[in-house]
Amino acid sequence: MFTLYNAARSSASFRMRVALNLKGLPFEYVAIDLRKGVQSREDYRRLNPQELVPLLDDGTAHLTQSLATIEYLEERYPQPPLLPHAPLDRAYVRGVALAVACEIHPLNNLRVLRYLVRDMQVSDEKKNIWYRHWVEQGLAQIEGGLVAGGRTGRYTFADQVTVADICIVPQIFNAQRFDCRLDHVPTVMRIFENCMQLAAFENARPEKQPDFVE
Amino acid sequence: MFTLYNAARSSASFRMRVALNLKGLPFEYVAIDLRKGVQSREDYRRLNPQELVPLLDDGTAHLTQSLATIEYLEERYPQPPLLPHAPLDRAYVRGVALAVACEIHPLNNLRVLRYLVRDMQVSDEKKNIWYRHWVEQGLAQIEGGLVAGGRTGRYTFADQVTVADICIVPQIFNAQRFDCRLDHVPTVMRIFENCMQLAAFENARPEKQPDFVE
Repeated sequence: MFTLYNAARSSASFRMRVALNLKGLPFEYVAIDLRKGVQSREDYRRLNPQELVPLLDDGTAHLTQSLATIEYLEERYPQPPLLPHAPLDRAYVRGVALAVACEIHPLNNLRVLRYLVRDMQVSDEKKNIWYRHWVEQGLAQIEGGLVAGGRTGRYTFADQVTVADICIVPQIFNAQRFDCRLDHVPTVMRIFENCMQLAAFENARPEKQPDFVE
Repeated sequence: MFTLYNAARSSASFRMRVALNLKGLPFEYVAIDLRKGVQSREDYRRLNPQELVPLLDDGTAHLTQSLATIEYLEERYPQPPLLPHAPLDRAYVRGVALAVACEIHPLNNLRVLRYLVRDMQVSDEKKNIWYRHWVEQGLAQIEGGLVAGGRTGRYTFADQVTVADICIVPQIFNAQRFDCRLDHVPTVMRIFENCMQLAAFENARPEKQPDFVE
């Protein structure tokens, strides 16, 4: 049995919920309230010194960093695969996943937005401009890569759901929440819509989690 | 023959240089001047629509995102391995690599620092405080994970050089350049010093590259 320490709105948590759903691995949901700072409390820090969600307990170890954890699931529970087979295709898929995880998401997570407002006295308006800037630019660059790569089908890689899709979908939820422009990334949005037809994504969305608050 | 489009000071480029050196794969060095915006020019964007370095041309494809490219090298050229063998150990190593690549580096790269100063009118002093905040906090969390994990030896994972070390070393170069505190992360610094004893790291350092400028 798996235990997932996570938060409804956290993108990286959303990724883990989708991955576990796709692999058909049931998990106990433990909500960590990021707004109350539960991730920095002593008992949680003992589990994850990085003070971040998600954290997956698979019964033998505590796994941190969503993409590292998804690679672990892929190695331990290979079916259905979340990566293609050929090395070049795997590099393409991992590249798209990392373009979200390294170029967009880190600039827009809660602790960074909080730091801008609380420690740098940035106005709410400027904070939102910051948010939209990185999302819109980052997604445009991903769109360019998807079009140039010529490998998309229903999903990022042909008709196979991969870790790239798992990263794209939560990022679009965030983009919509902050009213980002999305009409410049039609390929990304097509993939997003196709993913949301799948129960593994739909059941992982923030609004369906027990700790979701408007 | 490999061609690496990269920049002396870019951390992600530094990672790629180390990985290629460790794998014993010679490469042609093509310098991309990020300060002059060469990464956004039409001819480079055709190679990499993400407008980022590094970009590796292995003769069959253009590979983007350093961690995806390193995984590709690992699959195509497995010796010497840059990941451990057991899934849990691999997850630990990838987790440390991603803690650098997703939690620290994205907040401190050139385009983000530029945006803070040019578009958000943040003072140079505040920009430096921002820089040090994320580096010092991020490294502290990694230190906590390394100590709690109990797997370090000469390097992050026992005495095997891995992708975690490849991510840590360039981040420490950046930290030193911006006068970040480092006395709170003795385990990270021990790993850094041990890595710098190796020619693969030493030869990849920014100062030794043809496009380095003080």
